[in-house]
Amino acid sequence: MIGQDAGCCPVLSAAPLGEDQAAELAKVFKALGDPVRLRLMSMIASRGEGGEVCVCELTPAFDLSQPTISHHLKLLRQAGLIDCERRGTWVYYWVLPGVLDRLAAFLTAPQPAGAGA
Amino acid sequence: MIGQDAGCCPVLSAAPLGEDQAAELAKVFKALGDPVRLRLMSMIASRGEGGEVCVCELTPAFDLSQPTISHHLKLLRQAGLIDCERRGTWVYYWVLPGVLDRLAAFLTAPQPAGAGA
Repeated sequence: MIGQDAGCCPVLSAAPLGEDQAAELAKVFKALGDPVRLRLMSMIASRGEGGEVCVCELTPAFDLSQPTISHHLKLLRQAGLIDCERRGTWVYYWVLPGVLDRLAAFLTAPQPAGAGA
Repeated sequence: MIGQDAGCCPVLSAAPLGEDQAAELAKVFKALGDPVRLRLMSMIASRGEGGEVCVCELTPAFDLSQPTISHHLKLLRQAGLIDCERRGTWVYYWVLPGVLDRLAAFLTAPQPAGAGA
């Protein structure tokens, strides 16, 4: 759960990460460390803030079974990247607000004071 | 090799990632998806742009053998995140310039035209 439970806003290059922070953040990167999950994440995120995607639109993009796709989506959800809701026959997925920006901020080098860029 | 060989500057939420881009980028996230590697990366990155760290300073921070640490460093190097050079007895590691900023840019949501923030 980046930037929520695990101590607000660590920055990778600000100071050596503690063990607990590293363990929490490694889960998020591990979730993104698979081509199928990264494509799923991209398909969901490209709907924009507040957008969502039906699982019925995700599955046809892959040469994988529905249960396999659902498993990958579950791992993304467990990492705190997405959430979902069932409505009728289908489950709808969206990116949790701010999570990608917080992850980007974690990776961004702190700007030295007075830096021009 | 983020943002270098694999087609410049994909953005996760701009459009669904292609298979090749996803495969390349997943390697980078997978490398960061381990608590030990994330702490190593943080220790190296916190030296700042142009900074480097002797492996002899990295190993004592972990309750792991030197070969295990070297293996984790090798995976970070293979992912295109760091590079190293042997000088005399020791190997010195540094973060490849711009790699973290490119990864952050990949994760950052595109700002809608005219957005205030």
